[in-house]
Amino acid sequence: MQKLSRLYWPVLVTPKNAVTKPVEALSKSQKLMTELGLLKPASNGTFQIMPIGQRSLDKLCHLVNEAMFRVEGQKMSLPILTSTTLWKKSGRLQGDITEFFMLRDRHDKSFLLSPTHEEAITSMLAATAPISHKQLPLRLYQIGPKFRDELKARFGLMRAKEFLMKDMYSFDRNDLEARETYELVNESYLRLFKQLEVPFEKVEACTGMMGGKLSHEYHYISPAGEDNLLHCQDCNYAFNEEVSQVKTKVTCVKCQSSNVRQVKGMEVAHTFLLGDRYSKVFNATYLDTDGKPKTLIMGCYGIGISRILAASLEVLSNEQELKWPTILAPYDACVIGPKQGSKEAAQGEKIEQQMLHELDILCGKDVLHDDRKYLTIGKRLMEAKRMGYPLIIVIGSKSCEEVPKIEIHINGKPMDLDLNSSLLEIREYLQQKTNLIQL
Amino acid sequence: MQKLSRLYWPVLVTPKNAVTKPVEALSKSQKLMTELGLLKPASNGTFQIMPIGQRSLDKLCHLVNEAMFRVEGQKMSLPILTSTTLWKKSGRLQGDITEFFMLRDRHDKSFLLSPTHEEAITSMLAATAPISHKQLPLRLYQIGPKFRDELKARFGLMRAKEFLMKDMYSFDRNDLEARETYELVNESYLRLFKQLEVPFEKVEACTGMMGGKLSHEYHYISPAGEDNLLHCQDCNYAFNEEVSQVKTKVTCVKCQSSNVRQVKGMEVAHTFLLGDRYSKVFNATYLDTDGKPKTLIMGCYGIGISRILAASLEVLSNEQELKWPTILAPYDACVIGPKQGSKEAAQGEKIEQQMLHELDILCGKDVLHDDRKYLTIGKRLMEAKRMGYPLIIVIGSKSCEEVPKIEIHINGKPMDLDLNSSLLEIREYLQQKTNLIQL
Repeated sequence: MQKLSRLYWPVLVTPKNAVTKPVEALSKSQKLMTELGLLKPASNGTFQIMPIGQRSLDKLCHLVNEAMFRVEGQKMSLPILTSTTLWKKSGRLQGDITEFFMLRDRHDKSFLLSPTHEEAITSMLAATAPISHKQLPLRLYQIGPKFRDELKARFGLMRAKEFLMKDMYSFDRNDLEARETYELVNESYLRLFKQLEVPFEKVEACTGMMGGKLSHEYHYISPAGEDNLLHCQDCNYAFNEEVSQVKTKVTCVKCQSSNVRQVKGMEVAHTFLLGDRYSKVFNATYLDTDGKPKTLIMGCYGIGISRILAASLEVLSNEQELKWPTILAPYDACVIGPKQGSKEAAQGEKIEQQMLHELDILCGKDVLHDDRKYLTIGKRLMEAKRMGYPLIIVIGSKSCEEVPKIEIHINGKPMDLDLNSSLLEIREYLQQKTNLIQL
Repeated sequence: MQKLSRLYWPVLVTPKNAVTKPVEALSKSQKLMTELGLLKPASNGTFQIMPIGQRSLDKLCHLVNEAMFRVEGQKMSLPILTSTTLWKKSGRLQGDITEFFMLRDRHDKSFLLSPTHEEAITSMLAATAPISHKQLPLRLYQIGPKFRDELKARFGLMRAKEFLMKDMYSFDRNDLEARETYELVNESYLRLFKQLEVPFEKVEACTGMMGGKLSHEYHYISPAGEDNLLHCQDCNYAFNEEVSQVKTKVTCVKCQSSNVRQVKGMEVAHTFLLGDRYSKVFNATYLDTDGKPKTLIMGCYGIGISRILAASLEVLSNEQELKWPTILAPYDACVIGPKQGSKEAAQGEKIEQQMLHELDILCGKDVLHDDRKYLTIGKRLMEAKRMGYPLIIVIGSKSCEEVPKIEIHINGKPMDLDLNSSLLEIREYLQQKTNLIQL
């Protein structure tokens, strides 16, 4: 259990009559996250993540780890500093490189702050004693900071210069098996995005600078999105507008139907079937059943961890109040007891303690106790609602009735219930959360 | 449960008659970690951490999170990219800056890859709406990559250019309370290092470039250490040699006794009582009971996460075999069944399945099944011993006796036991592990 009085929660306090000058266009989520103490801007495009935001991010990392475990993903770490030599070899330092952060060390060697790790992992495998066909498929992943020197960093964690990503790399014996891995990982992404409850669309996308044969993006659907997604209502094919050669009229690139639904999307994940794009360059091979080396066939699979946090809040929240995906709520429950010195204080605090005791067993570290008893219940309830805690439990004046009542808000829906009925409702909510986790 | 045949475990295979040219001096742990597939060198001073090493690191991060939770540490994240403006303000960009990695972004703004975050967090607090005295003490921490452009990176993760650290920053109302926080965090460090079971020494140290009033280091004791630690046998004062003004003779700086024990140490953690070294520069204040702003008094507390992994193995292992701190073992148990086609295969595999079933319940993901049945038991046992798995469970020829026996090695000690007795021993080992976690 966390006492709110001890939580570092730097909400922005704007004086009532303050004239705020319009700064750069903020997205709704960036505005809410900054105002409500989840996030603070450091430099342009980099952010400090406050404890409440961090809790949510950590939960997402845990969920992603579980998803990767289910597809036999093995966790590892590659350095952030990547020698530019590797990127010269792959050809990805040709053309526009202004989005890369680069530096030279004291020996004048040149490094990238990696935006992605195809070169690093492929050259690593190539330098290892040959992999046997028996070890394949091989799926390696990491979760760590990535870097991109955006021309226009914007919308907070949506498009930051330093961001948290999960990146997985798969290695298979041939195109067929690589395709099987590709389908398997995409299925695990579908499950993950269902667990996260935010409406999403999976679309075919361009392979772009990554290269390869096939690629899909996962988008959260939002007017704030920067991508145009098209979904053919006739053949059910969904694609990013960029896939289409014809930019003037909206038709399905598969069946040419013009019965196409258009939505805006925010990209939160991307999968690539890379083929031998990197393994050929770096000569990454395995020993086949005949004892001869063959080129590994690759895929890569990104999830924008910090971006999912921002994008979820962008889609689910309204202008005033945060709303969280069940699994990512920083705390499941917020408990608000009577104001000190109020007439219900004595009786109410007994029930408050009882409730805290029960919740400690049910939710453990996921309980936040708003112990700022110098504030009115109304003030604290308003703040808890703005923070979007899924369970808000208020012990107020009705706790002094003959049958003491607790005011319990579940996902915004208020009810007056006695202690036992409250606990039943809370248990039901937690069961739904468990169902999502075990989906 | 993890099948070993599916684990990415790139052991170095050196041909028997290979003439290895002597490269840079490797430490024992670096040699073992590289040979045994825990670690691979990327560039000079940066490393790729393989799945087995990653498991151990993740366990250590979990343990550190728990330790920080016990002292009310709140987890957050600060960006790796830190504006040099902040470091100019604190004065830490004067003098020798060759150890800093620095870069300029596309707008020619200059950044450090942060080796530490005093400037970043202090300026963050200064820019926040004033903190109330009621919110103090405040303890914020993060776990993330840190950077130092070492002149001579060496000994693998012991002195790498990119490394994983936990850094906590504390904020108090005055020197007295800051000192209380300092003692509290140091107590939590003592507990943590007891949990990790590696012989260590806590010594007073110089504050160095960090500044401040008081500082202690935690060292793992090892001939491979680079620091000289002195422990007075008369007054029990322990200090890093660097604290002493007199470099020629060894005497206690407290009581001048020459009855001083000398050992070599590898620094794995460092605590600093910073006073107002940073809060004054950045004007980081809180509102005191009288409503007036007062300067925050700070401490900072580092733990070298990736260094602890290497240093633990350096101290505990011998030249041939890894030995792990109980809590950090990448897997608790390794199970080796009969070779395929051997006369004990049929009967043995039944017992192997039974054992795996029981272990799955007891250890879950911490079981490694060496399912490479094309290898002899002897070969697989030798490898498991080199890897230092605390529980090695061999189902071999004795599994065909009238009362089937299992060969079980607990921390290197072999026993022949029936299934039930084996499980009793395994449970006892796991209970000891639980005791350490709950210490």
